[in-house]
Amino acid sequence: MIGAVDDTHRRLLELGLELPPPASPFGAYVEAVQSGNLLFLSGTLPAVAREPKYVGRIGAELSAEEGRAATRLAALNGLAIAKEHLGSLDRIVRVVRLGVMLVTTAEFAEQPKTADAASELLRDVFGVDRIPVRLVYGVASLPLGMPVELDMIFEVA
Amino acid sequence: MIGAVDDTHRRLLELGLELPPPASPFGAYVEAVQSGNLLFLSGTLPAVAREPKYVGRIGAELSAEEGRAATRLAALNGLAIAKEHLGSLDRIVRVVRLGVMLVTTAEFAEQPKTADAASELLRDVFGVDRIPVRLVYGVASLPLGMPVELDMIFEVA
Amino acid sequence: MIGAVDDTHRRLLELGLELPPPASPFGAYVEAVQSGNLLFLSGTLPAVAREPKYVGRIGAELSAEEGRAATRLAALNGLAIAKEHLGSLDRIVRVVRLGVMLVTTAEFAEQPKTADAASELLRDVFGVDRIPVRLVYGVASLPLGMPVELDMIFEVA
Repeated sequence: MIGAVDDTHRRLLELGLELPPPASPFGAYVEAVQSGNLLFLSGTLPAVAREPKYVGRIGAELSAEEGRAATRLAALNGLAIAKEHLGSLDRIVRVVRLGVMLVTTAEFAEQPKTADAASELLRDVFGVDRIPVRLVYGVASLPLGMPVELDMIFEVA
Repeated sequence: MIGAVDDTHRRLLELGLELPPPASPFGAYVEAVQSGNLLFLSGTLPAVAREPKYVGRIGAELSAEEGRAATRLAALNGLAIAKEHLGSLDRIVRVVRLGVMLVTTAEFAEQPKTADAASELLRDVFGVDRIPVRLVYGVASLPLGMPVELDMIFEVA
Repeated sequence: MIGAVDDTHRRLLELGLELPPPASPFGAYVEAVQSGNLLFLSGTLPAVAREPKYVGRIGAELSAEEGRAATRLAALNGLAIAKEHLGSLDRIVRVVRLGVMLVTTAEFAEQPKTADAASELLRDVFGVDRIPVRLVYGVASLPLGMPVELDMIFEVA
């Protein structure tokens, strides 16, 4: 049987979500490190196969809805990395911490709503009892001009 | 006896400090997650009952002293969350890590002194043997225009 | 025998690298906190004995190469702190997580290459099997006008 589908993956499919191919690091770092029961990920970005899919500032080159789509994609990329590292997302006990770094115009006031795109995805996939703490802030710039980077920490069994 | 006062809470009272009511999350996240002996908090802000108490950039709309007051309030909000989660602040073995994200003008050069407002509060409450490492940096923006967000991690018994 | 040289330190010497004297905190915080097997460091900066060695934005006051040199110095400062705290860098099981916060011009597009200066140093010292996850982002400002701050977490034995 190829690609045995675990419970969490089944949940993704029910939600109509598909995990992108996991990113490969393109520097002297790795995409995931587990220490004890904590799994730390590299910053995940709205890219597909290393190509940025969203570039620009939310509120200028990108609309609020594109900002949410970019944030969702970054979260899916994080899950893809976690699945590759763990074998199955069912090994995730809970999502511990989600950091959301956004590049927006100075006027853009909906950072929390943008961040919700990742938070809601994680809630839908893992359930309301396993949602993380969250930090949201606007940064000056992100790699390759992308509008969002996520900082994800999981507890794994 | 209502509201049994633990040692740490007594220390707060001696310092003339009162914990605000703990914030409720207003999104798909929680305010605190414990994993093993680490307690992670969502970013804490200078708000009271969800209403921003300080809005603007330190060095422009807000003075340096207001920036320190905002930082202190954010730290108290963090302690309120920790107390609600743990039952008693006495369960905190130490403060492990304090991140301080500030929104200031480009000219404002006193980020460390602003961050000290949180550091000094934690030192006064927990004692000099239990103070955290610290990271301070200026960000582009924070939720609802607030000038400071804290990233707090505790070790708990 | 003064200054017993451990394996990791010998590796540093082979690389022609010398650890600077470890920084002393100048506020109500400490430079390193260990909780369980995780060692958290305060943000490390491109300073020598508290004096900023690099000041300004990468892409303006500082060249890309100076940005890399500043990032390397910040990483060395982090190792100096870790060595002071642990006694020997050989106690480091692996580098878990590296955050790289940079101050650059809006046009500067080489944040990842700048961050590589720290990543490559850690790879050279600890070996490719022990490299960390990485987060890179541009911030608005850093203490004392410095261009880079590192956020390092180690797993220790």
